[in-house]
Amino acid sequence: MTDIDYRPTGKLAKQSSWGHFDTLQSNREKAWYPMTIKDIAKTCGVGISTVSRVLNGRPDVSDEVRSKVLAVVEETGYIPNNSARDLSRSHSDAIGVVVRGSDNLFFSAVLKSISSEIDKFGYTMVPHFITSDADEVKAGAILEREKKLRGLIFLGGRFDYTKEELALVNVPYVCCSFNNSFGTLEDSDYSSVSIDDYQTAYDAAEYLMKKGHRKIAGVVPGKDDHSISELRYVGYKDALEDAGIRHNDNLVEETGGSFEMPAAYDAVKRLLARTHDFTALCVPSDTMAIAAMKAIADEGLRVPEDISIIAIDGLTVSEYTLPTLTTMVQPAERMGRHAVSVLHDVLRGKETRHELLKAAVREGGSVREI
Amino acid sequence: MTDIDYRPTGKLAKQSSWGHFDTLQSNREKAWYPMTIKDIAKTCGVGISTVSRVLNGRPDVSDEVRSKVLAVVEETGYIPNNSARDLSRSHSDAIGVVVRGSDNLFFSAVLKSISSEIDKFGYTMVPHFITSDADEVKAGAILEREKKLRGLIFLGGRFDYTKEELALVNVPYVCCSFNNSFGTLEDSDYSSVSIDDYQTAYDAAEYLMKKGHRKIAGVVPGKDDHSISELRYVGYKDALEDAGIRHNDNLVEETGGSFEMPAAYDAVKRLLARTHDFTALCVPSDTMAIAAMKAIADEGLRVPEDISIIAIDGLTVSEYTLPTLTTMVQPAERMGRHAVSVLHDVLRGKETRHELLKAAVREGGSVREI
Repeated sequence: MTDIDYRPTGKLAKQSSWGHFDTLQSNREKAWYPMTIKDIAKTCGVGISTVSRVLNGRPDVSDEVRSKVLAVVEETGYIPNNSARDLSRSHSDAIGVVVRGSDNLFFSAVLKSISSEIDKFGYTMVPHFITSDADEVKAGAILEREKKLRGLIFLGGRFDYTKEELALVNVPYVCCSFNNSFGTLEDSDYSSVSIDDYQTAYDAAEYLMKKGHRKIAGVVPGKDDHSISELRYVGYKDALEDAGIRHNDNLVEETGGSFEMPAAYDAVKRLLARTHDFTALCVPSDTMAIAAMKAIADEGLRVPEDISIIAIDGLTVSEYTLPTLTTMVQPAERMGRHAVSVLHDVLRGKETRHELLKAAVREGGSVREI
Repeated sequence: MTDIDYRPTGKLAKQSSWGHFDTLQSNREKAWYPMTIKDIAKTCGVGISTVSRVLNGRPDVSDEVRSKVLAVVEETGYIPNNSARDLSRSHSDAIGVVVRGSDNLFFSAVLKSISSEIDKFGYTMVPHFITSDADEVKAGAILEREKKLRGLIFLGGRFDYTKEELALVNVPYVCCSFNNSFGTLEDSDYSSVSIDDYQTAYDAAEYLMKKGHRKIAGVVPGKDDHSISELRYVGYKDALEDAGIRHNDNLVEETGGSFEMPAAYDAVKRLLARTHDFTALCVPSDTMAIAAMKAIADEGLRVPEDISIIAIDGLTVSEYTLPTLTTMVQPAERMGRHAVSVLHDVLRGKETRHELLKAAVREGGSVREI
């Protein structure tokens, strides 16, 4: 795509009355314009071979020149040809984003952040939505070939990738909101940006115990599905056991793999049909918790008077439910931003890396002290 | 982008055990591959000039040949060069989607439908999110130039475009979820797919009156902002006046242009501080209604016992609020699908067109009969 002239032409160029438009265009242009090694050399006032030596980490360059070149590389977003795994792709600026679980409101928030960060770096975002039971790796592999991607972000996915499976993906990729806890990938095979799902669920259960709860039920998509659901389930279970509470499987209900609201509603109904012998409920997502609150109300019970609820996500809408939801807030904006920035670094030849972001409780009205 | 080979290569091509993958790939490929007029002629077993005569609507072709050529054009998704406004762009497959109002949950639903339909036709979706107070036309014009778009979909926007302003956009575009009720565009200048916002708000107010309500308040972003808000406000107002209810401006509160939940919450608080003399409330979006229900609860009042509420959107989450929301459902999936299909038709040389989709009430628990 280097044959494109990104400077405004015609009418657009003449619209000087547009206030911030010129700035916007020129900022974008700076980031987007595919710099060549020649441009970098010229900007730094050094030769191409010097820039090349810096980029290849060779020692025969002065510290001063090295800093200067790296600063310009940083500022311009220049991507060295040799950093991508496949040299023939180096003209593409497309970053594929496979969004798994198309009704996931948390992902909608992360996607906006990914989009604006991709924009900032001057790439083009090519999103692809798949259902939560579809295979994101195959979808990503197809997208990569069809759209000649430079890199991929998986927004949601399985935690048990194998090396063989991921060999299908020939560009650097970042797992956003998940990692490879149950898989066989080496840390150096991939990058990830996520919260610590086990710890976050552990903290949620611990929060309920601090409020005096001992009989704590759980609703989960699956207990042993090698997914985010298993991690959060085990976190909840371990927190209880660490507090000396013997695990009671009768208090746990599975949705059959689904994070959707109808499935969560039905699961809570089944749980309540079986037992009322609990004072609090751990739910792995905000929308599932909203559905759970309705199921509880439809059974004639009240939140938090009869049952306290804690969730994980921190959506805006959860601040307006009745009662408002107590939830572990995942940093959606930061998660999207970091996923792009990790991918950008890997595309520029840096090592893969794994970022664990912190989730923190947002106290609403759905948990009472007993 | 004609230098790209879209056929699967390497590992991917050999994975015949992937079940539906081969079919998926070949379907996509069929739609995506940039056919030339030569390919069409060859497939039909006729000369290039014959294909050209058919595409230009010339009479000197037999009906049999004409049908054959049009069938192949239809099947392959071939886009004649002369249909796009700008010949030099004919090699791009990128459709820009400018999403205005980045927290709009209704748009999230429409966007997924747009994405899957763009995929089906073999284009590449390039989304761009802007806030609800940003200028989508400028954003679209920049995106068009930066990404060499073939066409644009505006998901959300103003209703008062001028010809001069839209001259900045040099590719066909579709207004999705809005039209040009307050602007100076001719119908032939643009395409649109939306509900009838005036009529939908009219129907919502009429629904409340059928349930016995006469004192009906309204919360709106703005009463005369030439936006979707004004259309919905006037629909509500006219419905009341047509039923012989004199308009009472004291029952209408503006949010200052915002569709966001915090602004809606504050507006309802202001309304309730001024008057309790109404039995029902018309709100122009589901999320605003969810915030309104919280404001009402925080004032110690109940929905629907003290105040009934009706909204417009029909989100899934509104089926799980307490009480569930009575709302006019916009067909999100269909709206996205039709927007792409209208754009596809225009890109293939058909006339611009305007589709008005029907919104229908979904009865929840937020309206009571009095």
